[in-house]
Amino acid sequence: MQRLLDELGRLPGIGPKSAQRIAYYLLESDAERARRLADAILDVKQQVHFCPVCFSYATGDTCNVCADSSRDQTIVCVVSEPRDVSAVERTGAYHGLYHVLGGVISPMDKIGPEQLHVKELLTRLASGEVQEVILATNTDVEGEATATYLSRTIKPLGVRVTRFAVGMSVGGEVELADELSLGRAIEDRREL
Amino acid sequence: MQRLLDELGRLPGIGPKSAQRIAYYLLESDAERARRLADAILDVKQQVHFCPVCFSYATGDTCNVCADSSRDQTIVCVVSEPRDVSAVERTGAYHGLYHVLGGVISPMDKIGPEQLHVKELLTRLASGEVQEVILATNTDVEGEATATYLSRTIKPLGVRVTRFAVGMSVGGEVELADELSLGRAIEDRREL
Repeated sequence: MQRLLDELGRLPGIGPKSAQRIAYYLLESDAERARRLADAILDVKQQVHFCPVCFSYATGDTCNVCADSSRDQTIVCVVSEPRDVSAVERTGAYHGLYHVLGGVISPMDKIGPEQLHVKELLTRLASGEVQEVILATNTDVEGEATATYLSRTIKPLGVRVTRFAVGMSVGGEVELADELSLGRAIEDRREL
Repeated sequence: MQRLLDELGRLPGIGPKSAQRIAYYLLESDAERARRLADAILDVKQQVHFCPVCFSYATGDTCNVCADSSRDQTIVCVVSEPRDVSAVERTGAYHGLYHVLGGVISPMDKIGPEQLHVKELLTRLASGEVQEVILATNTDVEGEATATYLSRTIKPLGVRVTRFAVGMSVGGEVELADELSLGRAIEDRREL
């Protein structure tokens, strides 16, 4: 029991109380349910691997997006982590391909471009089919620095480089917006 | 005492408990402090009025922004309420003038352009000195509808009309961004 509590407690967002609640739930439920959870955990580790093209998660040879020939093959959205692919997919606003860096440039953590899937991105661009790269790393310091580095590296290849808009959120109130975002919203205003 | 509690309880963000805490604080503090608060409340109502140019709050003939000749006189930021002027000022990103509409277009509340300071805005633009109008109404449904209406009204006058950027917040994480804002961020991406 203590071993289960320890393992559950290591999961993100699960503190000692949640771990205990889950452990008791598993004890009280039938053996079949516990086995299904354990199997699902083992299966996901066995069957899910990184897509060799975009480095998102995949169960087949490539991920679902790379395998889908109906996606726009001329545009690549560069994100930091596989979970960011899910976030962009949920918007329904994007129909191109992805490239997952596997992190961001962070000198503090000794992560440079060599530790990320940058070389593989440049190889993809070399084929000439991609016409635009959208840099969709986070808007924090490391995400912005990574975007700046990639922009400088990719633009000389003759590929269009864009960055997503920064500003007010949809449905947001001017009065309640944080100062930095409102400032950027005004600086990056667009023509109507 | 009950009258004070009632009056305090009507203030925004002050519930019965906060009202009671403030009321007891006033009872326990010296008479001079209570008088200063009462005076400040009366003074603000006596001395603060709407700026006849931009309809923000003013204590002098015009508001501080309109009276400041060092501000860029060729650009006007249109906001819904005087408190939005403070929000934009706090960003430090803007050095032009303002125009406060005094609300937003809202058919449900029977508020049309005639109920707002739209006519006065058009009169200001007629002088020809203003070259750009930034529409900075909220990004909710009514704010967007008001911006659309103003854009259609102002553009035929030959004045450049812009809207602040909508997208990711500064320092934001792609994974945690709301879907609508992330979608807009990708749609409104900008060239690097």
